[in-house]
Amino acid sequence: MTADRSRRRAAKRPPAARRATPRRKTHSRPDPLPTVVGKSPRRVDAGAKASGTARYTADLSFANLLVGYPVTSRFTHARIRRIDVSAARRVPGVVAVLTAEDVPGQNQIGVVIADQPLLAHDLIRSAADRVALIAALTREAALAAARLVVVEAEPLPLVCDPVAALEPSAPLLHPRGNLAAKMVIRTGDYAKARAKAPIVLEQTFTTGHQEHAYLEPNAVVAVPDAGGMFLTGSMQCPFYVQKGVARVLGLSHAQIRVVQAPTGGGFGGKEDYPSEPAACAAVLAHHTGRPVRILYNRSEDIAWSSKRHRTVIKHTLLADRDGKLVGLKATIYVDAGAYLGLSSVVAERANASAGGPYRIPNVEVDTLTAYTNNPFGGAYRGFGQPQVTFALESQLDALARELGADPIELRLKNFLRQGSRTVTDEVLRQPPLAARTAVEARDRSRWAAKRRAAETHNAADPDRRHGVGVASMLYGCCLHAGGQHLEGSAALVQIHPDASVSIAIGASEIGQGAYTAMAMLAAEALGFAYDQIHVVPTDTALVPDSGPTVASRTTIMSGNAVLDAARTLGARLRPVAAELCGVAESDVVLQAGAVWARGKQAALSIAELVTAAYLRKVNLAHTGWYAPPKKLWDKATGRGQPYSLYCYGTLVAEVSVDTITGLVTVQRVTAVHDVGKAIYGDGVIGQIHGGIVQGLGYATMERLAVADGKILNPTFTDYLIPTALDVPEIDIGLIEEPYERGPYGAKGIGEPALIPVAAAIANAVSHALGFPLQDLPLSPERVKLGWEAHRSPAAAAP
Amino acid sequence: MTADRSRRRAAKRPPAARRATPRRKTHSRPDPLPTVVGKSPRRVDAGAKASGTARYTADLSFANLLVGYPVTSRFTHARIRRIDVSAARRVPGVVAVLTAEDVPGQNQIGVVIADQPLLAHDLIRSAADRVALIAALTREAALAAARLVVVEAEPLPLVCDPVAALEPSAPLLHPRGNLAAKMVIRTGDYAKARAKAPIVLEQTFTTGHQEHAYLEPNAVVAVPDAGGMFLTGSMQCPFYVQKGVARVLGLSHAQIRVVQAPTGGGFGGKEDYPSEPAACAAVLAHHTGRPVRILYNRSEDIAWSSKRHRTVIKHTLLADRDGKLVGLKATIYVDAGAYLGLSSVVAERANASAGGPYRIPNVEVDTLTAYTNNPFGGAYRGFGQPQVTFALESQLDALARELGADPIELRLKNFLRQGSRTVTDEVLRQPPLAARTAVEARDRSRWAAKRRAAETHNAADPDRRHGVGVASMLYGCCLHAGGQHLEGSAALVQIHPDASVSIAIGASEIGQGAYTAMAMLAAEALGFAYDQIHVVPTDTALVPDSGPTVASRTTIMSGNAVLDAARTLGARLRPVAAELCGVAESDVVLQAGAVWARGKQAALSIAELVTAAYLRKVNLAHTGWYAPPKKLWDKATGRGQPYSLYCYGTLVAEVSVDTITGLVTVQRVTAVHDVGKAIYGDGVIGQIHGGIVQGLGYATMERLAVADGKILNPTFTDYLIPTALDVPEIDIGLIEEPYERGPYGAKGIGEPALIPVAAAIANAVSHALGFPLQDLPLSPERVKLGWEAHRSPAAAAP
Repeated sequence: MTADRSRRRAAKRPPAARRATPRRKTHSRPDPLPTVVGKSPRRVDAGAKASGTARYTADLSFANLLVGYPVTSRFTHARIRRIDVSAARRVPGVVAVLTAEDVPGQNQIGVVIADQPLLAHDLIRSAADRVALIAALTREAALAAARLVVVEAEPLPLVCDPVAALEPSAPLLHPRGNLAAKMVIRTGDYAKARAKAPIVLEQTFTTGHQEHAYLEPNAVVAVPDAGGMFLTGSMQCPFYVQKGVARVLGLSHAQIRVVQAPTGGGFGGKEDYPSEPAACAAVLAHHTGRPVRILYNRSEDIAWSSKRHRTVIKHTLLADRDGKLVGLKATIYVDAGAYLGLSSVVAERANASAGGPYRIPNVEVDTLTAYTNNPFGGAYRGFGQPQVTFALESQLDALARELGADPIELRLKNFLRQGSRTVTDEVLRQPPLAARTAVEARDRSRWAAKRRAAETHNAADPDRRHGVGVASMLYGCCLHAGGQHLEGSAALVQIHPDASVSIAIGASEIGQGAYTAMAMLAAEALGFAYDQIHVVPTDTALVPDSGPTVASRTTIMSGNAVLDAARTLGARLRPVAAELCGVAESDVVLQAGAVWARGKQAALSIAELVTAAYLRKVNLAHTGWYAPPKKLWDKATGRGQPYSLYCYGTLVAEVSVDTITGLVTVQRVTAVHDVGKAIYGDGVIGQIHGGIVQGLGYATMERLAVADGKILNPTFTDYLIPTALDVPEIDIGLIEEPYERGPYGAKGIGEPALIPVAAAIANAVSHALGFPLQDLPLSPERVKLGWEAHRSPAAAAP
Repeated sequence: MTADRSRRRAAKRPPAARRATPRRKTHSRPDPLPTVVGKSPRRVDAGAKASGTARYTADLSFANLLVGYPVTSRFTHARIRRIDVSAARRVPGVVAVLTAEDVPGQNQIGVVIADQPLLAHDLIRSAADRVALIAALTREAALAAARLVVVEAEPLPLVCDPVAALEPSAPLLHPRGNLAAKMVIRTGDYAKARAKAPIVLEQTFTTGHQEHAYLEPNAVVAVPDAGGMFLTGSMQCPFYVQKGVARVLGLSHAQIRVVQAPTGGGFGGKEDYPSEPAACAAVLAHHTGRPVRILYNRSEDIAWSSKRHRTVIKHTLLADRDGKLVGLKATIYVDAGAYLGLSSVVAERANASAGGPYRIPNVEVDTLTAYTNNPFGGAYRGFGQPQVTFALESQLDALARELGADPIELRLKNFLRQGSRTVTDEVLRQPPLAARTAVEARDRSRWAAKRRAAETHNAADPDRRHGVGVASMLYGCCLHAGGQHLEGSAALVQIHPDASVSIAIGASEIGQGAYTAMAMLAAEALGFAYDQIHVVPTDTALVPDSGPTVASRTTIMSGNAVLDAARTLGARLRPVAAELCGVAESDVVLQAGAVWARGKQAALSIAELVTAAYLRKVNLAHTGWYAPPKKLWDKATGRGQPYSLYCYGTLVAEVSVDTITGLVTVQRVTAVHDVGKAIYGDGVIGQIHGGIVQGLGYATMERLAVADGKILNPTFTDYLIPTALDVPEIDIGLIEEPYERGPYGAKGIGEPALIPVAAAIANAVSHALGFPLQDLPLSPERVKLGWEAHRSPAAAAP
């Protein structure tokens, strides 16, 4: 990997925000520029995590703790006749066995709509449906009891294909039908454009499920507390857990306190899903009056938790002979599994992102979310966008092949410009940086030379072929307009009497470095030193509902809230500083851990200033808040402003393909992302590295084997994820064009890092092999079969 | 007890605030008057405490938890030659044995000055001094190791009398001498008044130590956490613990998070003292990297923790022949024990309160705090004032006897009036309600008839004598001017999306009902229903340093902070309500759990309003703040404004005294207190009940036997506290004259409830026996000896 080297290279480049690197500290006030932001200090959570002292949920102890266990059945789709838990209750060590009738509040965990019972009572719709809950002294007792839960049920016909699910003849999973949600875009006049278009490219793409493969499986503890419930666990969205548990217990939000435990990864898999084990633990804790912990082992976690949605995408791209895009029609089938969960929200993003960063005047997109008996589709880094990006970017390469054009030149011809209309008919006001990312990626990767070299090589060695592919992306940062009511975010900043600072945000730390970025922003905005800032674990009692930790929104949303709080506190501290320094308030600046008066470092330290403020009884805590301006968007047409801002990125992937085995090896990736401003430098680089590796797994090896709705390979022995040896050489370029509403200009990076990866790899493989690839993952079997069919169509036909 | 009856009676009385009882709810808006305040809803902590589900510190579990134990020595005053812990370290199950050199930060726990090492290294100055700390797997192992800690030391002469301690010849406990602190009042010209005064009453009073006897002994857990330390335990002042632990560990405040556990009583005993076991646990946790819990058993708790100060008070009262007070001279010796702790602060209150609620123009008070080798003097409900009240009120009764005057009439002649000058030369601006409390107590108790009846009875039965006594009091509410830098207080109020509310205050719940009162104030000020409000345990990460939970300051300070936050949030909600109701913002009121628009209940519920506010992304959390105006006070003369406000009270006690055994039985107490406004009715009554019983114990039975600095009776077998059978009939009258700066007019009641009790009982006993009593407690032995000396002076002489 050459990331460090490339970052150093990036630092020599001219983009505006990079110039903001702090100068050498003197006793005269430096320019009012960031002094912490943009650096890479030690992560606030590094010590505890590296030393093993971080206490994950499995490490916690509680007096009288019980093991909780959710019981599933052998059915995937069935009508329940009887659930008999009497034998299970008699197992020694079992304290409680509960069924649906024991849920004290609503037996419901659907996060968007009420279609998902916590405990199945009439119908079983998926292999992960829970029919009973067990609390026992040991896991062994719980498992023994689980085996004795008798479920008598009448099997119903399975629905295992999202396209077939929507046919009139399909068995229904829910009374209102199998179409769980529908999103559309209607812009321009697609039919007219189709009739006139000289080039019409039609392909159908499929993408498979992807397992999140976070380090830590789901884990939660519920502890009865003062008439309510305290919960801690591995999660992205404590406010979702709070609401979900309040609902099943029939209590108010304030009676449910949720504190995020150190969390070993999320990637969307811990967005809504942890509310389910949390609700199970809470119901058991409520009934037993004792703390209950639910810890999934890896197989349980893979079998029961949500996955990246499997999709089928029927895609038609229209272009003229110059390579200008004139139309897009896409029907995107999203396989929700048995319940809606967040699928409609994922579909919303897939829908809005279907046109990528391109000008396409005539668009007809239908995104159809279908109920099936398959594994539960849910949030996963990229949130529906890797799928549509794969389809669109594959089509662009098909168009380039059709025209004999260079794929990057073709894209450059079609990128959105300032003032362009997006496919959702929004006039772009911010500078669209897609072209800059593409040019930078082209130049950094030596695209043209590499493409030529690959083609030369392939002519010489038809078995081990090389390819170079590209994919570009536009990512609507933060929540879609459809969820903008959740977009407000809070941060509590509290200055202690010794000038150390506690901050608490509504977003969570899931390994992405959020706490570090927030500590840096607090230090910067307060003018305090970074090591004075300490982050308190996310806690529903500390800050108001700040929405979910998703959609690459944390740096912008929580960051702006931190800035709001810090600025309020600064405004309370400055008059004290002015009084002590004997200058006007406007002549005082707190910066870089010092007090500056009229441009000179004051004799007063920050600690002395805070002591003086406490003596003057200044209120040194404030809950900062940020919500972006309202977005106007019409669900009926998909038109309007779906997102507050866009991030852009272009990836170039270099692969080699062993046509004998079908094995795809990604050799090198050049990733160029428009990040606004890299607040926490190492964090941004880490996110991009991680996104590339996770996208590489998605593209080439991660295959969830599902048969009759059941996962056949719920282990890392059989479900392969990339290892260190699979990581390619990575070169990263950052475009730092400050975003006017971002904290110090920042945008998001979590999801953009992954979105274009599979598309670029697929295009590289396609370049290597000379034919289009329509199905992810590009597993060896599939590549080999494709190659054989390409080389000898008759031989490979089924 | 007739408390409930008497409260109902009180409710029929006319004082202004009582009229504020809410009217029957209609659909027209009621007057803008309190609807929750003044009622007695179920305590917020009642369910958990009554059901046994509250998790006290002893109930908590932590993985790898160690038992911490502080090791004391057999010495009381000695120079250490050697501490050998090698044998202790070899005890199986012992994980660490630490001495002074192992303290990572400052080896210092003095809260006001740095005179108290956490671990003794050169000198031992008290029997409670710690020489080593042990962490072990079990308490048995810790105790076995403690017995093997070898301390070789050279005994030094003991200092066991606070008067003798200040003589030039006394051995010194600290290099700067045994006078730990000195407070004075110099008002008028005492010497001149003394020369002219027709009546000069001189007496010397002594008072003993008092053990707090809270239900729960000291308990704390320290858990290493993310480079810092998390602590929870039984305590009054989490911010003191935070600062104390930060100091011994050499960390910042933000690195130390302290959450108060449910706390089984404090009474001042858990003001500063818990910082000591907390520091011990933190140092052990720091060294072992494991959670460490220290739980004292009852004997350890009595032996090591602080006590109400033993005092010696030399008192001279000057009066004219009309009974008008003209001068006061008092020298108050406060026995600090070996370290200052909070003794100078206690002495500050004793000093400022020496003149009671009376006009005394010429005053000379010296309050001398002396180091001794006796048990540690510390905060205890009343904070120095029960001692000086006993002395002054005894002198007033002596004056009444001298003049043949009625004690209450004598007091009424001398009470402060509006515009009077206090003994600290402050002009009283608030209405001084002492006279009202005295008249009410006189009338409610049928004082004159009871006095006559007792005298008639005594003439008939010289062995079982009856007496009726009175004592009045002025209590400076909240912190003394000397500590006013600590007086700012915060409250975090957060409205959840379902309109339930979490509040967090800087003060703690120690059984006094603070959380309930705060929930009521929040409900009242927000206009929400009481059961929507939930209180989060006090946590240093939630709110800024809000000073200690002492000095009857919680209702005023935290209460005003809650109101500040609630009003800020109300101002954010009302525009939303106005918009939804289609009226002007000024026409909208949130009250009694409903939205009112133009005087009519709106169709909009509070829950709908909050939902709408969330959808509009209104910030629904705020840290409220309150600090009283600055007080001007001169330490050199003791003149100025020592307190922001005063509470007044008068108690009438009726006793019977068995002169054969010396046993004093308190039959009936009439307590009348000026409370401003009773926010939480049952809480106020409960405080007064508790204060009376605790004061009764102090007056009649609680005797800490101390010899050579060691406590001889550290058990409840030998140290007697009142039981249910000792509780007298209690009649309570509340004067509710709203205090302009109090939340809904409230003042404090925690300490006033106790302060006059011993004085009134002593005066009643004196009335029964016919001679003055100068020493507390009035234990049977002492009363019997006094009676025998009074009846036959020669026989009882030593």
